[in-house]
Amino acid sequence: MPGSSFGKIFKITTWGESHGKGLGVVIDGCPPLIPLDEDTVQKMLDRRKPGSSSASTNRKEPDRGIIMSGVFEGMTTGTPIMIMINNKDAKSSAYYTLADIYRPGHGDFSYDKKYGIRDHRGGGRASGRETAARVAAGAVANEILKKAGVSVISYTLELGGIRAEKFDTGSIPETILQNPFLCPDMDAAAQMQARVEEVKKAGDSIGGIVEVKVTGVPAGLGEPVFDKLDADLAKALMGIGAVKGVEVGTGFEAARTTGSQNNDPITPTGFATNNSGGILAGISNGDDIVVRAAVKPIPSISIEQNTIDKSSTPTKLSVQGRHDVAAIPRVNVVCEAMVSLVLADHLLRQKAVQWTK
Amino acid sequence: MPGSSFGKIFKITTWGESHGKGLGVVIDGCPPLIPLDEDTVQKMLDRRKPGSSSASTNRKEPDRGIIMSGVFEGMTTGTPIMIMINNKDAKSSAYYTLADIYRPGHGDFSYDKKYGIRDHRGGGRASGRETAARVAAGAVANEILKKAGVSVISYTLELGGIRAEKFDTGSIPETILQNPFLCPDMDAAAQMQARVEEVKKAGDSIGGIVEVKVTGVPAGLGEPVFDKLDADLAKALMGIGAVKGVEVGTGFEAARTTGSQNNDPITPTGFATNNSGGILAGISNGDDIVVRAAVKPIPSISIEQNTIDKSSTPTKLSVQGRHDVAAIPRVNVVCEAMVSLVLADHLLRQKAVQWTK
Amino acid sequence: MPGSSFGKIFKITTWGESHGKGLGVVIDGCPPLIPLDEDTVQKMLDRRKPGSSSASTNRKEPDRGIIMSGVFEGMTTGTPIMIMINNKDAKSSAYYTLADIYRPGHGDFSYDKKYGIRDHRGGGRASGRETAARVAAGAVANEILKKAGVSVISYTLELGGIRAEKFDTGSIPETILQNPFLCPDMDAAAQMQARVEEVKKAGDSIGGIVEVKVTGVPAGLGEPVFDKLDADLAKALMGIGAVKGVEVGTGFEAARTTGSQNNDPITPTGFATNNSGGILAGISNGDDIVVRAAVKPIPSISIEQNTIDKSSTPTKLSVQGRHDVAAIPRVNVVCEAMVSLVLADHLLRQKAVQWTK
Amino acid sequence: MPGSSFGKIFKITTWGESHGKGLGVVIDGCPPLIPLDEDTVQKMLDRRKPGSSSASTNRKEPDRGIIMSGVFEGMTTGTPIMIMINNKDAKSSAYYTLADIYRPGHGDFSYDKKYGIRDHRGGGRASGRETAARVAAGAVANEILKKAGVSVISYTLELGGIRAEKFDTGSIPETILQNPFLCPDMDAAAQMQARVEEVKKAGDSIGGIVEVKVTGVPAGLGEPVFDKLDADLAKALMGIGAVKGVEVGTGFEAARTTGSQNNDPITPTGFATNNSGGILAGISNGDDIVVRAAVKPIPSISIEQNTIDKSSTPTKLSVQGRHDVAAIPRVNVVCEAMVSLVLADHLLRQKAVQWTK
Repeated sequence: MPGSSFGKIFKITTWGESHGKGLGVVIDGCPPLIPLDEDTVQKMLDRRKPGSSSASTNRKEPDRGIIMSGVFEGMTTGTPIMIMINNKDAKSSAYYTLADIYRPGHGDFSYDKKYGIRDHRGGGRASGRETAARVAAGAVANEILKKAGVSVISYTLELGGIRAEKFDTGSIPETILQNPFLCPDMDAAAQMQARVEEVKKAGDSIGGIVEVKVTGVPAGLGEPVFDKLDADLAKALMGIGAVKGVEVGTGFEAARTTGSQNNDPITPTGFATNNSGGILAGISNGDDIVVRAAVKPIPSISIEQNTIDKSSTPTKLSVQGRHDVAAIPRVNVVCEAMVSLVLADHLLRQKAVQWTK
Repeated sequence: MPGSSFGKIFKITTWGESHGKGLGVVIDGCPPLIPLDEDTVQKMLDRRKPGSSSASTNRKEPDRGIIMSGVFEGMTTGTPIMIMINNKDAKSSAYYTLADIYRPGHGDFSYDKKYGIRDHRGGGRASGRETAARVAAGAVANEILKKAGVSVISYTLELGGIRAEKFDTGSIPETILQNPFLCPDMDAAAQMQARVEEVKKAGDSIGGIVEVKVTGVPAGLGEPVFDKLDADLAKALMGIGAVKGVEVGTGFEAARTTGSQNNDPITPTGFATNNSGGILAGISNGDDIVVRAAVKPIPSISIEQNTIDKSSTPTKLSVQGRHDVAAIPRVNVVCEAMVSLVLADHLLRQKAVQWTK
Repeated sequence: MPGSSFGKIFKITTWGESHGKGLGVVIDGCPPLIPLDEDTVQKMLDRRKPGSSSASTNRKEPDRGIIMSGVFEGMTTGTPIMIMINNKDAKSSAYYTLADIYRPGHGDFSYDKKYGIRDHRGGGRASGRETAARVAAGAVANEILKKAGVSVISYTLELGGIRAEKFDTGSIPETILQNPFLCPDMDAAAQMQARVEEVKKAGDSIGGIVEVKVTGVPAGLGEPVFDKLDADLAKALMGIGAVKGVEVGTGFEAARTTGSQNNDPITPTGFATNNSGGILAGISNGDDIVVRAAVKPIPSISIEQNTIDKSSTPTKLSVQGRHDVAAIPRVNVVCEAMVSLVLADHLLRQKAVQWTK
Repeated sequence: MPGSSFGKIFKITTWGESHGKGLGVVIDGCPPLIPLDEDTVQKMLDRRKPGSSSASTNRKEPDRGIIMSGVFEGMTTGTPIMIMINNKDAKSSAYYTLADIYRPGHGDFSYDKKYGIRDHRGGGRASGRETAARVAAGAVANEILKKAGVSVISYTLELGGIRAEKFDTGSIPETILQNPFLCPDMDAAAQMQARVEEVKKAGDSIGGIVEVKVTGVPAGLGEPVFDKLDADLAKALMGIGAVKGVEVGTGFEAARTTGSQNNDPITPTGFATNNSGGILAGISNGDDIVVRAAVKPIPSISIEQNTIDKSSTPTKLSVQGRHDVAAIPRVNVVCEAMVSLVLADHLLRQKAVQWTK
């Protein structure tokens, strides 16, 4: 059964490969009468553009999102919105040398085992480039969230082992734009810069942690027992290629606390603490939603690695070409988009539940 | 949109509340001709039974799983299998005092906000008791996995901050049965015992980490791009009430390594290391699958907490009655069941992909 | 992929066989706060009871619908409602002689080809008895429809070639209760009686046509382009075992008219005619919805037929035991239930569309 | 909940409006390693092209299907196949005069009630042009069916009340190409020609009946109890805008026969007759599948009709512009495509069932 669709009511289906003709997304289930234009989509797409940070590849892809359907005279009509991005600057020749070699840490080996065939150009469907379609859809989801008073922000909590320790949560939106790593702690950002340079020089790569915070979420979103809001968020984030861990609220730290420490006392004006990350029994409780995604190091490195080719012959591989040193900060907006998609979907799902209210 | 179904081909739908007439599961999509009887189901159900560890409640619930349909002369027929568990020892009167009070850390508040009504007896649908239905379904999934040569095991990696550090992976199945915490490290288990006694005395509770390992998985399971195998595992585990974090392979540690450290070199006889946890680009690579779930402390504690009642009046709450000190080790088999459900489903999903092979 | 679920938001999953322990339905997605008790369910179940017409079998099955979950203090809670019917008067021994023989017109042959195993007792999962679960769910759907001012009625338009030609649409609800065939034309009903006696004597069976009419439907239900309201109604009705044709509005007659005859002129107070059957481009237009289902003759007849057994040996078969002469009028309430399920589902689906209105 | 997707394993999602930038389809779940190129798609698209029969519009739309993804070096890769058709010859100005008027028999009124906004240019999403995307997908489905030895053919059984009565079923493929109505009875075709001229002159339109026959279907396709093969076929065909009735095998005629006439006797070499249309209890029995769709007259006619505008003011409407006199024969390939989509999907669905065989 295919897996290129996400969401139940605000439902997206993506298509396309890294070095084919293009890629895109069909959004089915966007409510009508929401103002939408290509600028709104482009602003979000630009945030995952390569080349905006020293950790990023030099590939210059314009990534123009074209709205092909579902919008009429500046408004959504309720019918499917298709947003397409044509591929232009795709040097696939660079990848042909890799046609028969399985790159460690990539999906080359597992895709071949699954399908018996693989579009090897630039990672094909498994390329990080596929996430551009999700970001375009996330931009539309955001318009719904905005209308509902919900806002989503993402930032770098950790990169290459350096953690943002001290920051004012109120000024995150401004601070993260003042350093190339979207880090809310300027001191940490400076150390990240040094770490990135060092790693780049070594031909290696690094991972990190992205935090996404959602404010203004109404209580009541999420469906027992399998489609819990945190279950859907976990699936959304773990479905990003580079992500290997997801946590909500205190997350793995909760495993080391006691109930009296971890429970959030309830007061007439809200929860006294937010260890739960805004979700209780899988349903939003009205507090901020806080989730984190652990991002592994980019697997494409120029350091030589042992691997095999299609005929199982051992070989050495040093990946050249244009690659990011870290998925962060480009992946941040992808995490944000996935969270937005989940929330827009559950916001609409709750409408049917509220039928009798 | 409702959320009580899980899986696409091996698809389960659960029903029932903690203190209603009973609970159960409909399994739709189980292949025909698989030997199945109630003993097989019961053995797995017994593993989540209360009372088997000092960390567990004293409630004695027989939890007899009755196969109501879908099995004929000892074999599955391909039609829906309904397994039902009647509720018997449910002292709901004990819960009536809690009818109007929101217990911190529980779903009482968020359920009320969602539905405007709530079966408050024993947590109703949000009760951990609901997971019995998942375990019954997991027992059936296991029969499929067994036939395919796949086996799943769960154990306690951490409890109350004490981690199983030294253990022989080969002898896990035997070791975990020699201590009440299903811990593969007997020394750690002894410390856990002390920690549990201390916490119980304090009227508090603790969390921990469950690890699930799957061996014998064929390469090729998982669907790009949203229904990645790890994305579905993350959803499956995060959908368990007490779970607040999920990681695959090196997980959050991967965020602190470099690509040259984290990439698994490939050799003609397999992967040299297994940092990926058996999943690359969302597709199984043939190696063992390793996932971990962070389990928060049981929120029901006798230590007094601040909360409010339905009319928003502040009140104090000390939860009495029979409660576990930790969800571990009872939750272990639930984690195992959820992992089994995901794998059985993806095993069957891959059949359609392999149509042309 | 399994097929025992129906609906997207008001979603049902049925289970059970004709002569197993019982059968039932899980309703997931019923909004909370709707008054519901077993009497409401039972009233609808009683309408498909055998023995209420001369065309029906003599099997006396109490068919008590038991609500196992999802209702608390007389109200739906929003969580899954499981309704179960235990099997009691099931003379499966009568069916054991048929264990190896494929009955013409039944699913025996095709089920064996599909699954390689078959619960042959009374038709197993393919038995008409399975529809009791749908009717129970339909009773719940009706409570939603009632709240929305929508009402659904079914009646016999044709039986054994005799058509209800002259009847007052206003008095259908009363008239159909005055004859055993639920026919709105008493003269036709008298002829049906004679036809049924004649056929019964011959050991044969007959078919007919059921019409379902829905009043009070708001305009706007149905989703372009595949989940059109009429497409979902067609699937719902064709999914009843005995149904071989479905039509909406003028249906097959529309194929023989011209556009100027078939188009419904629009006036400020509504449509001047209702040839469309209340659905335009797959979306309800506010007029009455009118659908018809063609029901084939019951395949179990005592007249001797040629068939084969499991080993492909030719044999003669004369089906004895208790069987209806016609699926009508027992199937009428099943058609009605299926239509109710579709409408309740689309009523809730439209909530998400109306988000911005 | 959105309705632009169809199928479970071979799953399509369409997008686009009649006079927007274009339209297309994402096919998710096509097995890998199937040879596919644009010529194969184009051949099927050409069969629904306007201008090929005297009953068709003169709009000359090139309708070039472009494969944007999912095919690599001439083979499907298992990842989503997006096929796009750009809109070129779209005289939307002609439609602007209709912006505020509800055309009888069209979806204008019901779409406005549903969404509160409508892309009125050429019918927008409700246009028959949307079916081009289904046909493109049907071409891909056909490649799967071909590989499985299944073939699908469609033809005109009735047009404007004239029925193909006498024809040799063996020579249908050749005969239907010898007349512009795709009718297997040349005498009937001649009468159809006269009928079409007469209707065109009157500024009116006509309906008809399309029959689709599938040969080579393996027994065992279709899922009890809701996703019966005939239930899915009924939904597929009724989901075509112009279709108002669907029947399988003897269909509505079955309602007028007796069991002894309608049951198909079974012999060691197969069924003696095929009244069931190849489907028993919702599962294919290995015989030819025969379904029919009743197509209503094209609602756009130049004969003046009564209607209202958006402000509910009565007005007269005579639809000018380029319109077909009948949806037949252009709709035939659409019916065929929908049947192919259902069969390809169920063929793949059956793989999971056969897991243990």
